[in-house]
Amino acid sequence: MKIGLDVMGGDFAPRNEVLGVIEALPELHDGSEVILFGDEAQIKGVCREKGVDVSGFQIVHTTEVIGMQEHPAKAFAQKPDSSMATGFRYLSEGLIDGFASPGNTGAMMAGVMYTVKTIEGILRPCISCFFPVIDGRWGLLLDVGLNADCKPENLYQYAILGSLYAKGASGEKNPRVALLNIGEEKTKGNIVTKAAYELMKDTKDFNFVGNIEGNELMTGEKADVVVCDGFVGNVILKMAESFYRLADCQGIHTDFFSKLNYEFHGGTPVLGVNAPVIIGHGSSSPKAIKNMILNTEKTIRAKMLDRVKDIFRNSSFNKDDNS
Amino acid sequence: MKIGLDVMGGDFAPRNEVLGVIEALPELHDGSEVILFGDEAQIKGVCREKGVDVSGFQIVHTTEVIGMQEHPAKAFAQKPDSSMATGFRYLSEGLIDGFASPGNTGAMMAGVMYTVKTIEGILRPCISCFFPVIDGRWGLLLDVGLNADCKPENLYQYAILGSLYAKGASGEKNPRVALLNIGEEKTKGNIVTKAAYELMKDTKDFNFVGNIEGNELMTGEKADVVVCDGFVGNVILKMAESFYRLADCQGIHTDFFSKLNYEFHGGTPVLGVNAPVIIGHGSSSPKAIKNMILNTEKTIRAKMLDRVKDIFRNSSFNKDDNS
Repeated sequence: MKIGLDVMGGDFAPRNEVLGVIEALPELHDGSEVILFGDEAQIKGVCREKGVDVSGFQIVHTTEVIGMQEHPAKAFAQKPDSSMATGFRYLSEGLIDGFASPGNTGAMMAGVMYTVKTIEGILRPCISCFFPVIDGRWGLLLDVGLNADCKPENLYQYAILGSLYAKGASGEKNPRVALLNIGEEKTKGNIVTKAAYELMKDTKDFNFVGNIEGNELMTGEKADVVVCDGFVGNVILKMAESFYRLADCQGIHTDFFSKLNYEFHGGTPVLGVNAPVIIGHGSSSPKAIKNMILNTEKTIRAKMLDRVKDIFRNSSFNKDDNS
Repeated sequence: MKIGLDVMGGDFAPRNEVLGVIEALPELHDGSEVILFGDEAQIKGVCREKGVDVSGFQIVHTTEVIGMQEHPAKAFAQKPDSSMATGFRYLSEGLIDGFASPGNTGAMMAGVMYTVKTIEGILRPCISCFFPVIDGRWGLLLDVGLNADCKPENLYQYAILGSLYAKGASGEKNPRVALLNIGEEKTKGNIVTKAAYELMKDTKDFNFVGNIEGNELMTGEKADVVVCDGFVGNVILKMAESFYRLADCQGIHTDFFSKLNYEFHGGTPVLGVNAPVIIGHGSSSPKAIKNMILNTEKTIRAKMLDRVKDIFRNSSFNKDDNS
């Protein structure tokens, strides 16, 4: 299995990226390898500094870098030899099995749309993240920021994607899927969640358990997968991360609070697209990069793509007119 | 100052309500008194059990109770001698200065709309809550659940209301008001927050400091008042409360986490209506009731109503066609 990594896109590139690769290598499964996209001389420089044998690294040398402040679509189109664009080319040609980057998120999404593209039948892709549950397990939340204005149909599709991803990545046999809402009753919510509830209530596409509220997210008592629009999900994700820091600055270091640290997963998979793509934090630490690589491996191993394609090929949802 | 309390509406009524009053009385300012709306015999029963002299209590005897599961508007209209309806009648006749209840939230809002009504010029009322900031201060978040589908104009008005309430209740001279969003840049967000940003960016009605993200809420570094729609605010409120319990069950009891407990404030003021009205949790403990009473006193003392009426009388916003 070949895991592609953009080592030039992050705020501390390529140093943190290369250090993350060094940390990740011993923890990968047999047969997994990391392909580094970036400036060969800089990558080798970090390796030498750390006394790491560079011959074990597979580097695809690139000459351009997409910056954090660049216009996503323009930068992606105008820098074909950037680490990011080259990685996506390798991904779409099947030369790597998945691609991860802590770079410009908009450019990553432009890369997805220009190369591997959305799976047929999916109205809008989304990004997901695992969140810790107090009993030690993990829950899955989606969308956490890609689609800030969701329609009920988007939420319905995210429920299917989240259910399949939880099955593949966490081994849950029949994940309980809930709709995040502001009341348990079906009449509660905003216009979108009320309509989404109606779409979901009798579904056979996933194991719908109804609405859950913000206080039930991390108890894990009701749901394994929680669906919401990308605005709400992003606020939750960032708020949860801030609780890691709020606990940390009070000297609190429990298993639960440690797992709220973004470094614990290092990146969020883009779901609903034709290849495993993982987006990381711009300011990723080496630990975050390491975990993003392991997370990418997990996403590739989940092998959910064929199943998703099968389901959505026969889906009743038409293409989104506004997309 | 006369603080009205519905002692029959909560899940553990009237016991927790009466115990809460007993706890609150020593902490009220001189000249403040609590008027209890409810069944006189039951109220006296709890007092006797606790050995409290009932002669110091001002009780308005009522014979009906609005249940938690009742249809809000119907129950309010059909039970004129309920503790809640009687309280609102006293409020609208100026016999009390504010009214608080842990009862049926929908019926409370029906009560507001039927009696004291929305301030002229306000499109939709909202509810607000204080949240703890890590440096020990408090921030104000609104709307936390009344208006799940907000328009940009609603958010703009909530910013005015929040700013005035923070001035009155916390003594902040020029509170920094931020729009909760999923990015700092003005182009980030959903359709509503992007439009709200445009309304707010050059305003002189409040001290607008721009967008803040979910991770910046409880640092307090950027804003004193944070505005969002009632769906997002309700999710945040409940998630924050759940962190109190998540910390508690891990044996963590710091000042900061204790302040996330809903009991700390006990209720959320309804802003944008013609009298101080506070809505509490249905399952309020005596401590929560005590703090709801103190919170009601604080809201009455904030004396923001005349200022709000002045501002909105001259407001350019027209009545909401969908309300």
